[in-house]
Amino acid sequence: MAVPPDLAHIHHAELFTTQPEESLRFFVDVLGMEVEAREGASVYLRGWGDYMRYSLKLTESAQTGIGHMAFRAWNEDALQRVAAAVEATGRGLGWSDGDHGHGPAYRFTDPDGHVFEILYDADRYEPPPQLVPSLKNQPQRYTGRGVGVKRLDHVNLLAADVRAAREFATDVLGYRLYERVELDDGSEAGAWMSLSIMAHELIYTRDHYGANGRLHHLAFWVDTREECLRAADLFLDNGVYIEAAPSKHAIAQGFFLYAYEPSGNRIEVTTGGRLVFDPDERPVVWTQTERAKGQAWGVKTIEAFHTYGTPPVESKS
Amino acid sequence: MAVPPDLAHIHHAELFTTQPEESLRFFVDVLGMEVEAREGASVYLRGWGDYMRYSLKLTESAQTGIGHMAFRAWNEDALQRVAAAVEATGRGLGWSDGDHGHGPAYRFTDPDGHVFEILYDADRYEPPPQLVPSLKNQPQRYTGRGVGVKRLDHVNLLAADVRAAREFATDVLGYRLYERVELDDGSEAGAWMSLSIMAHELIYTRDHYGANGRLHHLAFWVDTREECLRAADLFLDNGVYIEAAPSKHAIAQGFFLYAYEPSGNRIEVTTGGRLVFDPDERPVVWTQTERAKGQAWGVKTIEAFHTYGTPPVESKS
Amino acid sequence: MAVPPDLAHIHHAELFTTQPEESLRFFVDVLGMEVEAREGASVYLRGWGDYMRYSLKLTESAQTGIGHMAFRAWNEDALQRVAAAVEATGRGLGWSDGDHGHGPAYRFTDPDGHVFEILYDADRYEPPPQLVPSLKNQPQRYTGRGVGVKRLDHVNLLAADVRAAREFATDVLGYRLYERVELDDGSEAGAWMSLSIMAHELIYTRDHYGANGRLHHLAFWVDTREECLRAADLFLDNGVYIEAAPSKHAIAQGFFLYAYEPSGNRIEVTTGGRLVFDPDERPVVWTQTERAKGQAWGVKTIEAFHTYGTPPVESKS
Amino acid sequence: MAVPPDLAHIHHAELFTTQPEESLRFFVDVLGMEVEAREGASVYLRGWGDYMRYSLKLTESAQTGIGHMAFRAWNEDALQRVAAAVEATGRGLGWSDGDHGHGPAYRFTDPDGHVFEILYDADRYEPPPQLVPSLKNQPQRYTGRGVGVKRLDHVNLLAADVRAAREFATDVLGYRLYERVELDDGSEAGAWMSLSIMAHELIYTRDHYGANGRLHHLAFWVDTREECLRAADLFLDNGVYIEAAPSKHAIAQGFFLYAYEPSGNRIEVTTGGRLVFDPDERPVVWTQTERAKGQAWGVKTIEAFHTYGTPPVESKS
Repeated sequence: MAVPPDLAHIHHAELFTTQPEESLRFFVDVLGMEVEAREGASVYLRGWGDYMRYSLKLTESAQTGIGHMAFRAWNEDALQRVAAAVEATGRGLGWSDGDHGHGPAYRFTDPDGHVFEILYDADRYEPPPQLVPSLKNQPQRYTGRGVGVKRLDHVNLLAADVRAAREFATDVLGYRLYERVELDDGSEAGAWMSLSIMAHELIYTRDHYGANGRLHHLAFWVDTREECLRAADLFLDNGVYIEAAPSKHAIAQGFFLYAYEPSGNRIEVTTGGRLVFDPDERPVVWTQTERAKGQAWGVKTIEAFHTYGTPPVESKS
Repeated sequence: MAVPPDLAHIHHAELFTTQPEESLRFFVDVLGMEVEAREGASVYLRGWGDYMRYSLKLTESAQTGIGHMAFRAWNEDALQRVAAAVEATGRGLGWSDGDHGHGPAYRFTDPDGHVFEILYDADRYEPPPQLVPSLKNQPQRYTGRGVGVKRLDHVNLLAADVRAAREFATDVLGYRLYERVELDDGSEAGAWMSLSIMAHELIYTRDHYGANGRLHHLAFWVDTREECLRAADLFLDNGVYIEAAPSKHAIAQGFFLYAYEPSGNRIEVTTGGRLVFDPDERPVVWTQTERAKGQAWGVKTIEAFHTYGTPPVESKS
Repeated sequence: MAVPPDLAHIHHAELFTTQPEESLRFFVDVLGMEVEAREGASVYLRGWGDYMRYSLKLTESAQTGIGHMAFRAWNEDALQRVAAAVEATGRGLGWSDGDHGHGPAYRFTDPDGHVFEILYDADRYEPPPQLVPSLKNQPQRYTGRGVGVKRLDHVNLLAADVRAAREFATDVLGYRLYERVELDDGSEAGAWMSLSIMAHELIYTRDHYGANGRLHHLAFWVDTREECLRAADLFLDNGVYIEAAPSKHAIAQGFFLYAYEPSGNRIEVTTGGRLVFDPDERPVVWTQTERAKGQAWGVKTIEAFHTYGTPPVESKS
Repeated sequence: MAVPPDLAHIHHAELFTTQPEESLRFFVDVLGMEVEAREGASVYLRGWGDYMRYSLKLTESAQTGIGHMAFRAWNEDALQRVAAAVEATGRGLGWSDGDHGHGPAYRFTDPDGHVFEILYDADRYEPPPQLVPSLKNQPQRYTGRGVGVKRLDHVNLLAADVRAAREFATDVLGYRLYERVELDDGSEAGAWMSLSIMAHELIYTRDHYGANGRLHHLAFWVDTREECLRAADLFLDNGVYIEAAPSKHAIAQGFFLYAYEPSGNRIEVTTGGRLVFDPDERPVVWTQTERAKGQAWGVKTIEAFHTYGTPPVESKS
C-alpha cells in the first residue's frame, strides 16, 4: 500500500576534492554557486534556489568521492521512526550534534558503505543584503553567474550490489522505486528512486570494478534545457572536460550534461525528467536489450560513463 | 508539524461547455488532447502524460463552469480518513459507485459550493496500438498535435470567501498552503495550495461578484516555456482569444498563457513554477502593494483576469 | 574585393524517392510541410515560412538522391550574368521554359555532376483561405503539425573532388566561402558556403566512395533549438531513424538533428548557426586534428555520417 | 529591380550617457559586454559575437541619446558610391580620419538630423589570451556574464518626418524597406529597414513630440528567446527598469525585452525576427487599425513606448 515517505528530500551532499582551490573556482565561477560558509577544510556552497543554507559541502581530502549524504525528514517523529528502522538493521553509527546549518543527525552506512545522515532540524537561508531577491518566494537573488545552478537535484552512487543498496533505500529509508535495470542474468544494474514526484533523487548503479562507497555523480538543477545547452558552451570555453554532451535520458527522461570538476568528480547539469503522480506507480524495468539502444534519442553512452567513478579504483587503498 | 498529505493529486476535473463541438475541437485539435471515451453528454480527454485514463471530463451543459473536481488519495486508508474528516464538517454528500475509469468516490462541496470528489481506486491508462510510446516510462506516445499538453496541472476556483475555502482545503483535505494574498483590510484575496512539491495544484481567488461555485481557470502543463510561446502562435492562428500573453507570474513563479476555450471557460497553458522542498515551508504572504506591481517582469494584469469567471455572473439563475 | 552575390538564395531542391507514399507521409505528417501542388510523379511541398510556392519537389524515381537544385537570382540582369559565366565554363545544358511556380531556368551541372538550375522569375505564394495567417508578414499560417519546419535551409552535396566543386560555386556562381576542412595531405574534405549572412546554404563534403552526384542531406529550418529537441521526440514516436541526436556543430555552429526519411535520404532539422556580417570574412580552415575532436560539445560523429549518402553507392549503375 | 545594397551592416553606434559609471556597469555587468578600449570620455564595448573590435561607443555627455551611427560598406568602391550619393543630397559633412578601430569615414546627417558615418576600412577583433574562444569560428570566448549579449543588432531612431528619413535611407543609403506603418491620415508612423535578410537593422518611428535627432532604442542580440526571458530575471534582480516584458512583436516578428539603462536610454534585448529571402520583397504596410491590436500575442504596448525617447524632450535646448 503506497504511503508518502518519512524523509522529505536530500538536504546536502559532502564532496571530497583533492584540488580544493580549483574545485571551488569551478563551483563558484563556472556552476555559479555561492559560498555560504567556510569551516576547517570545508566550504559550504548553495544554489540560488536552495531554501536551506547549503546543499553542497566541499571538503579537501586525500581522495575524491562522496564524504557523506544527508537527508531531511518531514518532522521529528518521522526522523525518529527512520532512525529506529536503520538501527534495527545494525547499520547505525549513532547521533551527532549536527553541523553548520543543521541540528542532530543520525549517522549510518548504506549496504555499500556510503555514509548517510538523517536529520530534521535545519536552518532556513537568510540572504545577506546583496543577495536579497526581488521576489519574496525565492530564497536568494538570481546572480546569473556562470551556469547558475538552482539547487542540488540528485545523487548517483555506485554500488557493488545494487539490489541490496536499493532494498535498503526503499525498505528502510522509505524511498519510492520508480525505475530499474535488470540484466539478462537477473542481476540489477541500476535503480532510480525518489522521495517526491520528481523522477529520481537517489540512484544506485553498478560499480564496474565491484568496489564500494564510490560516487558516480552529483546532479545540479537548472530550470530549462536551454540552460543545459548554455552550460555546455560555458564548459567548453572554461576548459571543463565534457564527458557527455546535452541530450535526453531514456530512463527517467531527464535532460543531461556530464562533466568532471577539476579534481575528477563527475558533475551533471540536469533538468526535466518525468513526474510521478501515481501513488501506486509500478517500477519500470528496463532490460539489457532495451538499454543497448542508447539514450532516448539513440545517443550511445561512452564507455567511461559505465566504468568511471570517484575515487578512482586505482587510488583506493 | 509538517506531514505529507493523505491526498496525492487532482485526478480529474469536469468542465461544462455550452458549445460541446467547438470546445471538443479546441481540446483535441488545438490543445492536442486525446479522446479516451464518450458517455452520454460527456467526452473524457487526456494529455499524453496522464498516467490515468483521463484528466478532463468535458460535459455539455446549460451553462459553463466547473462540474466537479476529483482528488485521488494515496491509499484506501487515507481515502477513508479524509472522507471521515469531510463528513464531520457536515459538507458530505455521500458515496457514489464511481465513473468511467475510477471506483467509489465520496462526494461533497467545498465551503463555496464547488462539488468535489475523493477516490482511491483508479484505472491506469492502457494505450491502443497507435498510441503506444517508444519509451516505456511514458503512458502514451507524444503525438505533437497542436499545443500537445501533457496533463492537467492545476485548478483555480473562485470563492466569495477565500479564507473559508482555503481553511477547508488545508485543515480538512490536507492541502499545504504555499502562498496567499492578504489585502490591506485583512481579507484574503487568494491562496495557492499543493499536495506535492509543485508550486500549486489548487488555487482559490476571490470572486469579484461575490458569486459562488465559479471557475477561474483550468491549467494544462507543457514541459517548457518554449511550448507556451509556441502555444501562443497556435492560438493566434487558430482564432483562440488570448487573454494574457506568455509571461511569468510573481506568485508561484509559473510561466503562463491564458486563453478562453470556445464556450468561454478560461484555460491556461503553464510550465515552470517553483518547487517546495521544505517540509516546514512558511506560506508567503503578498500584500496589496506588492500585488500592484504586476507580474514578475512588471506585466500589468488586465482587468478581466480579476473579474471574469465561468459561468458568467449574469447568466447564473 | 568583397561583393554581394548575384544569386539570392536556393529556390528549391528536387528530391528523389523510391517510396513516394511513405516519403510524402514523412514530409507532411512528421515534418509538417504542406502539399502545394502535384504534377506527374512529383509533389511540390512547402514550409510555413517559404515565401515562394514551394521549396521541395519530391519525385518518385528508380533511385534516391537529389534530382536538381534551383537558385534564384537577385534580378534578371544578375541571372543573365551568372548564366553567361556558367556557359563559359562549358557546363551549360541550356534554358528550360520553367516548371510549376517559376519561369525560365538555365540548367547546368556542377563539376561533380549534380544538376543545377538558376532562375529569376518566380511566383509568390498565395495561401488558400484555410492557410491565411494572422500576421500579414508571414506567408502562411503556422499549423503546428509535426515538426512544423519553416523552410528549406541548406543543401549538403557529396563530391568526389570537393575543391573543384567549391571553386565552381565561389568563382562562377558567386557563393561566399565561410569555412572549410583541409586534411593533412592538403586535400579538401568539406566547404561551407553561403549567399547571405547565414552560416551556410550550400555545402560540399567529400564522397567517401569517390562517387559522383550524390546527396549528403537536405536541411529544414526551425526557429528554435527547442523545436529540434521536440523533433527528436516526434521522430522517436513516429519510428523515424535518428542518425544523430540533437547537438551543436563546431563548423558553422548550427544546431542539428539528423534522420533518414523513409526512402533513405538523410534529412536535417536545423537552427542557429553563426551569422557572418564581415564583408571580408576570411574562411575558417579546420585541420584534420581539429575535426577529430568531434562536434562543438565533444560528440563524436558516427561513421555513417562520413560515408552514407544517396543514392547508396551499391545501387548506382 | 532588386539589387543587393552597397552597405553591409551597422558597424557601431555611439550612445551618450549622463551617468557614465552606472551606464558602464550596466553594459559590462548586466548586459555582459567587454571593454575593448577607453579613450577620452568614451569606452568602446563589444559583444562576444562582434567580429569587429566594438559595436558600442559609450560616451559621457551633457545629455543622453545617440551620438552617431556608423555603417560599413562592402568595399571601397561601394563606400565611394554611397558617399557620392549622399554628397549629392547636400547632407554631407565631409571625411574624417577615422576613430579607434576603423579608418576614414564620411560623415553626414539624415533628414532628421542624426549624425551618420560610412566607412569601409575596419579592424578585425583580436582577442587577448583570456578571451580566446575554443571554437575558431567565433571571435571571442563566451563569458556567460550577465545577459551575455552577442552583438549590436539594430537601432531605432525617432524622426519628426518618418517618410523623409525612410526615403533617404532607402534611396540614398540603399536600405531595403521591409515593413512600415501608415496611419489613416496617410502619414507614415514607422519604417523597418535592413541591409541583409534580417528583419530589421535600421528603424525610424515617429517622434511623438516632433523633436529631431532622438533615439528610441538600441537593440542587442541574443541567440535564443530563453536568453531574453533570462535577461528579464537578471534585470529584475539587478534593479533595472523593465519597460516591456519579453514578448513577440507583430511587426518583423522579433522577440523583445525593453529596459532603460541607468542614464535613461532605452535598450532592447532581442532575438528572432523573420528572415527575408525574396529579392523582390514587397513592403508590408500595417494600418492604424492593425496596430491597435497590440503585439503579436495581443500585448498592449504601454504609452511610454510611443512617446519616450532620449534625450528627453524637456531637456533639449
